[in-house]
Amino acid sequence: MMIEPLAPGSVIGILGGGQLGKMLAQAAAKLGFHAHVFAPDDDAPAARVAAHYVKAAYTDPAALKAFAKGVDVLTYEFESIPSESLADVDQIVPLRPNRKTLASTQDRLAERQLLCLVGAPCAPWVQVDDAASLEAGYHALSAKSGTIGLFLKARREGYDGKGQMRLGAQADLGGAADRLGRRGAILECGIGFDFEFSLIGVRGMDGLCAFYDPPRNHHREGILALSQVPGGLSHHEIECAQNIARAIMEKLDVTGVMAIEFFAVRGAPEPILVNEIAPRVHNSGHWTIEACMVSQFENHIRAIAGWPLGSTARHADAEMVNIIGPSIHDWRAMLADNPARSLHIYGKAEAAPGRKMGHYVDLSPLSAQP
Amino acid sequence: MMIEPLAPGSVIGILGGGQLGKMLAQAAAKLGFHAHVFAPDDDAPAARVAAHYVKAAYTDPAALKAFAKGVDVLTYEFESIPSESLADVDQIVPLRPNRKTLASTQDRLAERQLLCLVGAPCAPWVQVDDAASLEAGYHALSAKSGTIGLFLKARREGYDGKGQMRLGAQADLGGAADRLGRRGAILECGIGFDFEFSLIGVRGMDGLCAFYDPPRNHHREGILALSQVPGGLSHHEIECAQNIARAIMEKLDVTGVMAIEFFAVRGAPEPILVNEIAPRVHNSGHWTIEACMVSQFENHIRAIAGWPLGSTARHADAEMVNIIGPSIHDWRAMLADNPARSLHIYGKAEAAPGRKMGHYVDLSPLSAQP
Repeated sequence: MMIEPLAPGSVIGILGGGQLGKMLAQAAAKLGFHAHVFAPDDDAPAARVAAHYVKAAYTDPAALKAFAKGVDVLTYEFESIPSESLADVDQIVPLRPNRKTLASTQDRLAERQLLCLVGAPCAPWVQVDDAASLEAGYHALSAKSGTIGLFLKARREGYDGKGQMRLGAQADLGGAADRLGRRGAILECGIGFDFEFSLIGVRGMDGLCAFYDPPRNHHREGILALSQVPGGLSHHEIECAQNIARAIMEKLDVTGVMAIEFFAVRGAPEPILVNEIAPRVHNSGHWTIEACMVSQFENHIRAIAGWPLGSTARHADAEMVNIIGPSIHDWRAMLADNPARSLHIYGKAEAAPGRKMGHYVDLSPLSAQP
Repeated sequence: MMIEPLAPGSVIGILGGGQLGKMLAQAAAKLGFHAHVFAPDDDAPAARVAAHYVKAAYTDPAALKAFAKGVDVLTYEFESIPSESLADVDQIVPLRPNRKTLASTQDRLAERQLLCLVGAPCAPWVQVDDAASLEAGYHALSAKSGTIGLFLKARREGYDGKGQMRLGAQADLGGAADRLGRRGAILECGIGFDFEFSLIGVRGMDGLCAFYDPPRNHHREGILALSQVPGGLSHHEIECAQNIARAIMEKLDVTGVMAIEFFAVRGAPEPILVNEIAPRVHNSGHWTIEACMVSQFENHIRAIAGWPLGSTARHADAEMVNIIGPSIHDWRAMLADNPARSLHIYGKAEAAPGRKMGHYVDLSPLSAQP
């Protein structure tokens, strides 16, 4: 296939106006593209660094269509945009990653089915549609679940620990079914993991894939707090993770960045398990701006523009710390701690608890580990 | 003096909409500031990455005043804005660097007088106002000038080799005076230098200065083509350059980045000579985005916002190549040459000869040289 790359001056359309959209828009502008941003917010961080901003709902098909007509390629910073809303849109302009990718990753059930299809290991799970299937699943999985218990996860709109509940021994299944309501869910075994890590891959229009070194991730209250590279993984673990990511990206024919969150369970029959797939740039890859010549944001833009991928090599070790909620007010102390710290403040008006307000990256000299 | 730093969410006003303004606006947004850009252009690169854009002439005092009222601090990406236009403006909002700095650097005569004042060495020069003073100066300087000849340089709006003419032996002084017209000028001895380099310094509101490692610069047809760090300077040469820069920044009470271009004349009684001062971020410092944790752009924003300066340390050797005029059309080959290359395309519509359209940076492992 002959790929005609988008020329500088072309327009990159981004659905979503948060910090990921902001960093994507800045990467697009660096390469000479015009970034247009579409989001429902009054005061979107990405809007302030974009050439054009459209404020409208993701469920407004007319607004989406009009936006699509003004761009040369369309992408998104988060996967909760109803894929149905984009059914007409991807007839107007290429959506990258494609709609199939969006549909397979915004629904936990479809995601788990995809993992089965490519043979990627994950925690044991069952589909839950109502009180009866919850009860049946609970009894079927309880034997496998050990001390961690089971997790009931809504099929849609779960991120940063939202839309989940833990079901321990003698759980109130009726109450859980009530809280779930008519939303579909999956029930899965909690995993007693050694640590969490993520793999950020990118696939070009030519089908070539590249991967950043996988960071080890630390969560607090379900929200990513810290990512560190090197992540302390073995070459074999990294190779397994890359093989899974490559299989998923090929299966879905992904163009752009895809991130996969993993559990490492050393000594288990399946030593790495997929936790979650995000068909987009990812919080655990923010350090690529400072530690790599071509960041995840720039490589995503390169990929969806049909450009050759840039190097994913890392020239330093890195630690990325998320700044959550009101702790953003301590920005002075964060600067004072380390003059070589790279601080990112997203520019969100309200520092609500649990809200990602910024992050910072500290680098140290490159160690031998991958 | 107690310095109250501008909080994230404050507005940084930038006069000038080119690539320097673009990179300043992106640095401001990274720190959570809103960037407002003022420029006379229809299609300014900086406008596409700013929260707000005002298109008006630098000579329109009402537009400048209205712009100033909407920002918390005002800065500029180039020094040719008539300092008189800003006389009222800096009563409304702090202008950083200040108006004295602008006035002293947009006029070659004032700049040379400043150099005398702080004892900074430069090429022998005389003031030229008319045919008679040109003739007198020519005869006075010819004895000192050697084979390089003399250069007649207009006092204002000279950059990238514009507004200059070389006067060799038996020069047509009448013709030169005619071409100069009523514009004032200086006549100065051409320097037979070993190489050119620049020093990029930044001074905070607290008076503290920091300096990036000085790159060696290569010009083609009067336009910067290439900057390399390390620049191959001795510790003594770097110290002399820093002392000169510090003296100038203190004399003018500069807040922000200031760049000084130097000639190195090894073995001469004055081994480094000041060529030119730019009270702003500088083309020869573009590599600081990739090779430093805090770039010249971010440090300029930090300084004018009253923030502590960030580290100017370099974690890699770097080479920055300017992409001039129609050669921008070769961007595919530039990418293909090196997947770890960081490419910047400014997004200017017309690739006119001599116009800076983009640049790229290649890094290599840090060597021991400064």
